[in-house]
Amino acid sequence: MNKLLIVGTVAFDAIETPFGKTDKILGGAATYIGLSASFFNLQSAIVSVVGDDFPQEYLDLLTSKNIDISGLEVVKGGKTFFWSGRYHNDLNSRDTLDTQLNVLADFQPKVPQDYKNSDIVMLGNLHPLVQSSVLDQMETQPKLVVLDTMNFWMDCALPELLEVIKRVDVITINDEEARQLSGEYSLVKAAAKIHTMGPKYVVIKKGEHGALLFHNKEVFFAPALPLEEVFDPTGAGDTFAGGFAGYITQSENISFDNMKNAIIQGSNLASFCVEKFGTEKMVTLQKSDVLSRLQQFKSLTQFDIEL
Amino acid sequence: MNKLLIVGTVAFDAIETPFGKTDKILGGAATYIGLSASFFNLQSAIVSVVGDDFPQEYLDLLTSKNIDISGLEVVKGGKTFFWSGRYHNDLNSRDTLDTQLNVLADFQPKVPQDYKNSDIVMLGNLHPLVQSSVLDQMETQPKLVVLDTMNFWMDCALPELLEVIKRVDVITINDEEARQLSGEYSLVKAAAKIHTMGPKYVVIKKGEHGALLFHNKEVFFAPALPLEEVFDPTGAGDTFAGGFAGYITQSENISFDNMKNAIIQGSNLASFCVEKFGTEKMVTLQKSDVLSRLQQFKSLTQFDIEL
Repeated sequence: MNKLLIVGTVAFDAIETPFGKTDKILGGAATYIGLSASFFNLQSAIVSVVGDDFPQEYLDLLTSKNIDISGLEVVKGGKTFFWSGRYHNDLNSRDTLDTQLNVLADFQPKVPQDYKNSDIVMLGNLHPLVQSSVLDQMETQPKLVVLDTMNFWMDCALPELLEVIKRVDVITINDEEARQLSGEYSLVKAAAKIHTMGPKYVVIKKGEHGALLFHNKEVFFAPALPLEEVFDPTGAGDTFAGGFAGYITQSENISFDNMKNAIIQGSNLASFCVEKFGTEKMVTLQKSDVLSRLQQFKSLTQFDIEL
Repeated sequence: MNKLLIVGTVAFDAIETPFGKTDKILGGAATYIGLSASFFNLQSAIVSVVGDDFPQEYLDLLTSKNIDISGLEVVKGGKTFFWSGRYHNDLNSRDTLDTQLNVLADFQPKVPQDYKNSDIVMLGNLHPLVQSSVLDQMETQPKLVVLDTMNFWMDCALPELLEVIKRVDVITINDEEARQLSGEYSLVKAAAKIHTMGPKYVVIKKGEHGALLFHNKEVFFAPALPLEEVFDPTGAGDTFAGGFAGYITQSENISFDNMKNAIIQGSNLASFCVEKFGTEKMVTLQKSDVLSRLQQFKSLTQFDIEL
């Protein structure tokens, strides 16, 4: 089985949506990526950090999904990263109510020896220096490095972000972030500019409006599945990235055509994530449900005009 | 050849976008629908009204596209409907600067005798009583009646609008209008509610975010083609509707699967419309360009996951 190395936060989230609110629940980019990638045949490991306030039950959950957590450092006396946010009524925007970096502030990632030859590396949202440090520790060149990031790092660590972006094959960011990073309003122009920064593949996530994959002059679009109700968008982008990276890892195929499939797999998994609060849906989701919804994606997008 | 009857405004538009502004140019829903439908093998006629300030050159243009204008009334001493608007920087929203109904205020549509047995009727944006009156004049039941409307009629002629909506097979409206008409935020729920108002098919236009086609529990999505630059969105929705209705008319097939193709054809034609001011692009567009961009739509959306 191929190996997927996942870097990103493992965290507590407290979420408010128009439908309700949660206390501190399991969250974090690496958590969502790992859960999503676990629907594929692969070996995966998370590199991250938590405090010793992090419940054993959450660690056990990750392990039960066959995620190697030997690279998940537990800091004695430390507190786990905490994020709290409130979504607006349309669920397309949110306010951050609280961010406590805690153990993330001094985090030095350590890639487990077994994963220094990973086939695919998924650099989830974290400080770009942490993302770079993980790449530095690889002993063989991964077949594909995927990076996810957010506007926060563009605001406060842009030089470091640009350095790590140079080293990756695929970048996944949302539409506003693509505009901020490139200075271009048109997403076609934004993607072209981001290509010149390093990544050969640019994935622009548009939330409920789907995702675009750009590669040179080629472009592919995956819609989001139209849902009766979106309950909580938290983690949807990470779940998307985890499905993308997980499928690529399983299939050992980094062609553009296979990346189209990977984008669909990511969109499919993300469509489940938003149906319940936090990780709740992803934890109980069955593979048979994932496959049957893939069929819906086909019906949703495939047509048969003869040309 | 099958017959398509088109109802809607024929107008003067004055448009401001971030890229420039126009004086009074050719516009109107029926104009865009007619130009778009002219790319298919069909006979079409426009039912509308203008004043005698409407230039012969514009009438000749419509005739040159094989559009029958015997139902386009020219009111002696009357002035043509005029709309003026300014788009915001993101081109997704606009302010109406001026609306002069002029000859539209007392318009009584007259369907040409030859078109009282039309196969397909496309009721473009106009007062719902005008749309109803056209249906009243049909001597045979059309195979498909498509209705486009806008929030303006929901605000000021809702009972009349609900009456005509009962009588149509397909409604095309934008996402905000679907929400207003249904009182539902979720587009899936909005479409379900609009089904109960009459139309078996609900098309929700999302501008640069594509279009959704709902039919009972089935749904199909067509993206908008990602463009380097959108120059002027005026008429894109009507061009979309014209492509949809035109393709259905040509193909004589009103199955859901063929409507998927029709939605793609509409999206394809609309992608050209926005590239220049007003009708400029649609007037000079060649059929070979339309076909070659259809191939781009295939590459944009088709994938090959084995299930």
